Amino acid sequence: MTKTNPGRFFEDFRLGEPLVHATPRTVTVGDAALYLAFTGARHALFSSDAFARASGLAAAPVDPLLVFHLVFGKSVPDISLNAVANLGYADGRFLAAVYPGDTLTATSEVIGLKENSSRKTGVVHVRTTGSNQRGEAVLSYVRWVMVRKRDETAVAPAEQVPALPEAVAARDLVLPAGLDLSRYDFALGGSPHAFDDYRVGERIDHVDGMAVEEAEHQMATRLYQNAAKVHFNQFERAKDPSGRRLVYGGVVISTARALAFNGLENAGLILGINGGRHVNPYFAGATLFAWSEVLDKAALPGRDDVGALRLRLVAAKDRPCADFPDKDAEGRYPPEVVLDFDYWAAVPRR
Amino acid sequence: MTKTNPGRFFEDFRLGEPLVHATPRTVTVGDAALYLAFTGARHALFSSDAFARASGLAAAPVDPLLVFHLVFGKSVPDISLNAVANLGYADGRFLAAVYPGDTLTATSEVIGLKENSSRKTGVVHVRTTGSNQRGEAVLSYVRWVMVRKRDETAVAPAEQVPALPEAVAARDLVLPAGLDLSRYDFALGGSPHAFDDYRVGERIDHVDGMAVEEAEHQMATRLYQNAAKVHFNQFERAKDPSGRRLVYGGVVISTARALAFNGLENAGLILGINGGRHVNPYFAGATLFAWSEVLDKAALPGRDDVGALRLRLVAAKDRPCADFPDKDAEGRYPPEVVLDFDYWAAVPRR
Amino acid sequence: MTKTNPGRFFEDFRLGEPLVHATPRTVTVGDAALYLAFTGARHALFSSDAFARASGLAAAPVDPLLVFHLVFGKSVPDISLNAVANLGYADGRFLAAVYPGDTLTATSEVIGLKENSSRKTGVVHVRTTGSNQRGEAVLSYVRWVMVRKRDETAVAPAEQVPALPEAVAARDLVLPAGLDLSRYDFALGGSPHAFDDYRVGERIDHVDGMAVEEAEHQMATRLYQNAAKVHFNQFERAKDPSGRRLVYGGVVISTARALAFNGLENAGLILGINGGRHVNPYFAGATLFAWSEVLDKAALPGRDDVGALRLRLVAAKDRPCADFPDKDAEGRYPPEVVLDFDYWAAVPRR
Repeated sequence: MTKTNPGRFFEDFRLGEPLVHATPRTVTVGDAALYLAFTGARHALFSSDAFARASGLAAAPVDPLLVFHLVFGKSVPDISLNAVANLGYADGRFLAAVYPGDTLTATSEVIGLKENSSRKTGVVHVRTTGSNQRGEAVLSYVRWVMVRKRDETAVAPAEQVPALPEAVAARDLVLPAGLDLSRYDFALGGSPHAFDDYRVGERIDHVDGMAVEEAEHQMATRLYQNAAKVHFNQFERAKDPSGRRLVYGGVVISTARALAFNGLENAGLILGINGGRHVNPYFAGATLFAWSEVLDKAALPGRDDVGALRLRLVAAKDRPCADFPDKDAEGRYPPEVVLDFDYWAAVPRR
Repeated sequence: MTKTNPGRFFEDFRLGEPLVHATPRTVTVGDAALYLAFTGARHALFSSDAFARASGLAAAPVDPLLVFHLVFGKSVPDISLNAVANLGYADGRFLAAVYPGDTLTATSEVIGLKENSSRKTGVVHVRTTGSNQRGEAVLSYVRWVMVRKRDETAVAPAEQVPALPEAVAARDLVLPAGLDLSRYDFALGGSPHAFDDYRVGERIDHVDGMAVEEAEHQMATRLYQNAAKVHFNQFERAKDPSGRRLVYGGVVISTARALAFNGLENAGLILGINGGRHVNPYFAGATLFAWSEVLDKAALPGRDDVGALRLRLVAAKDRPCADFPDKDAEGRYPPEVVLDFDYWAAVPRR
Repeated sequence: MTKTNPGRFFEDFRLGEPLVHATPRTVTVGDAALYLAFTGARHALFSSDAFARASGLAAAPVDPLLVFHLVFGKSVPDISLNAVANLGYADGRFLAAVYPGDTLTATSEVIGLKENSSRKTGVVHVRTTGSNQRGEAVLSYVRWVMVRKRDETAVAPAEQVPALPEAVAARDLVLPAGLDLSRYDFALGGSPHAFDDYRVGERIDHVDGMAVEEAEHQMATRLYQNAAKVHFNQFERAKDPSGRRLVYGGVVISTARALAFNGLENAGLILGINGGRHVNPYFAGATLFAWSEVLDKAALPGRDDVGALRLRLVAAKDRPCADFPDKDAEGRYPPEVVLDFDYWAAVPRR
């Protein structure tokens, strides 16, 4: 038997199968600093212990997207080593804040299997859960990937596709324990815009642009201990039509989120991920731009200090977003658009 | 009203106006490690808790230049988003040591306004102050920038240009509380050179050269949460005659300072910034070299363990500095010279 | 006298000379995070405080290779600033675990001197010892370098070449205090492979490939405060036939070790370095691949929870290793092979 991990092929997955992912990970202020260096994120809550304490927390929590990337990275060797494509995310909820010193582990359960008509690949749905050292779930989300079959003649398991919500229900959103934004400092936050200042349908061009270098996405993806070959193996990627290493989609999400500070300064705290698609590949060197749309607004039960905005974040490469590049009526995206991401964020009320 | 920050134009500034900058920032050992990775700095005091404790401090403080960059970064969205050029620094004093765990905030006051004769731009002077979580000032400095007018026909405010000292007076320099260099370990420091070994007028070629890559300056500048567009937006920069992202001047200062270890090993503790100019742009990939000149020496009141050297640090690109490239009699710099920086540093006495 | 360090030339070394290296260094979680970002290392013991505690340790120790690089880096200004080549390592032992917060210092003793027949260079052997803030040795190893003479006519010291063991004896290997792998979690470790599953002579292709960018090796080498000019000074390197900055060999070792996770998941804890040679230069951009060979297996005295594997790690550039590229009968390596590294690692027993 070979000692190396060849990764699971489509016919290796079993419905209901629980997967314990390797390499537990203590998150530290070192990770938080690197996340700033990769993204330039400026949300006060994750940047300042003092600001977090004034918001009722023990210290600055780890940016939810960093938590997402770390949990996601753990799942790669068991789920997507032979993935052709990462098709989407849904039903993601951040269930408890993560603080420096916490240790994350990740498990997944296979919740959907569907062979493609070509019989060469199939779609695998998994629900992945990240937990802390006390066994408390900190993040749960579904993702689905297209995975190669090892043997095209292998009999596929019975088809099962999970029902997924179009969006996380606002009542299922969880705020970090202790959070109190009733005395939120908007000057330190970076803008006067509160929950009440955003309206459904509003679109915001985030103006700024940011290039990501090969070294940057590789370092970020390594930090997340995401070992997917496409991000690092240039020798192999040279045979791809693009000839390029593919940038981990999470790097695009985090870069676009950091750009979105300009207009969404006080919406740093992501509570849920409703959906997300990487609609075109992003290669290092191109400049990312982003725009957002307010899809929905929700009061949170029993809270008058904070509400939730449902936001759509669209990122484009080498394409400023003043005119909001978007999919057309048939759902086809312009080639410059690389990301369409739908999430809930907490925003202080005045 | 747009939600995004367009930045202040020249006519938006008011004399005496106090500006509270966004995004308070807890400095951590993660930041300190990244600062080493960006610069290769080797000064023992900032590298070793044990060395710092033997010097009377509680732990290794954060390199003063890292403090400077973090405070500077906060001021960018309010002051220099529409800056044409960062013209200079003056009267900078480090007022208290910053330790990992401290949270920095920054405020600025407009202290000078002068429209240029073209009426298209004006020069804004600000005094920026960085404070810690106890409200103690840790750094204060003046910088002036050339800022575009939004509307050339706008009436400019009355001209006011602050009087600035040519250099910080030695008596105004502040040593970190508790610092005692009377048992300084010169072997661990990296050279036997003490305060008494330097003479006014002495020039030192720092010999070593260091290239800075696009990924490196971008990561550093993001870590400092400095969002100036010129450092990141390659798509936009492609329209500039250079076609290149401009490297944040602070990256040049820190790289040159790290090179200056070779000859100024025991002069790591910067106490004041007398002046500084970025006299030519630096683009990634070029190799930086540096030389220093001892401009002045000063005893410090009541101290026989430490004195202050006033040093001039000159950096050049793709140009070794054995012959000390310098400005000419008319003050014109060779095109390779990128930095002329004047500062005070503490140096142990024997 | 010049203030800058010109480095020692061959005739400057004296047998038995003790060298105290500058710049003590407190290792932090920031360093550990950067090490992950540079390598993508996934060994659970260094990644998770919780996993380390379940293994009897107080917290996740620092990866032994990071300790090696930090100690090595300190020795460069005193030993290899004028080195033509870093010829080899031997008799390396990790003597105590290093935890975040520990401060490393390094000293070396000259233990061998031998002029080359050309009289232009000589080979210097040094034993370098890294110690923590309690004065306990944490690492001891021998390395030898070819160093230029300042003056070819200078009389060389009497020739002395130390006797070095072909490998560290298993009885001399030191496990971290408190380590207990009797309840090792192989699922979190990343594979079911235990000490007993490996056989002498077994070879493992690690499959994965990883490119290293200029920014990445520079940042790593700066973090290690290794100031060797060849890694940073592109202006000078442009005159070399390669025209390229040379990547610090330790970057190659650490990258290859991270790739070796795939097949050696539970062998993260390096106990000794038997030997190592950089047999061809590696330049940024090439994709590294690696394979391993089990050279020996040893029980450890009084331990039934853990044994030691003697492993040979071979790395190649732009050359997958499915066919185990190796030296020929005359000991000549293919041009793609860049590293041949021989070490002991602890592996849990079942």
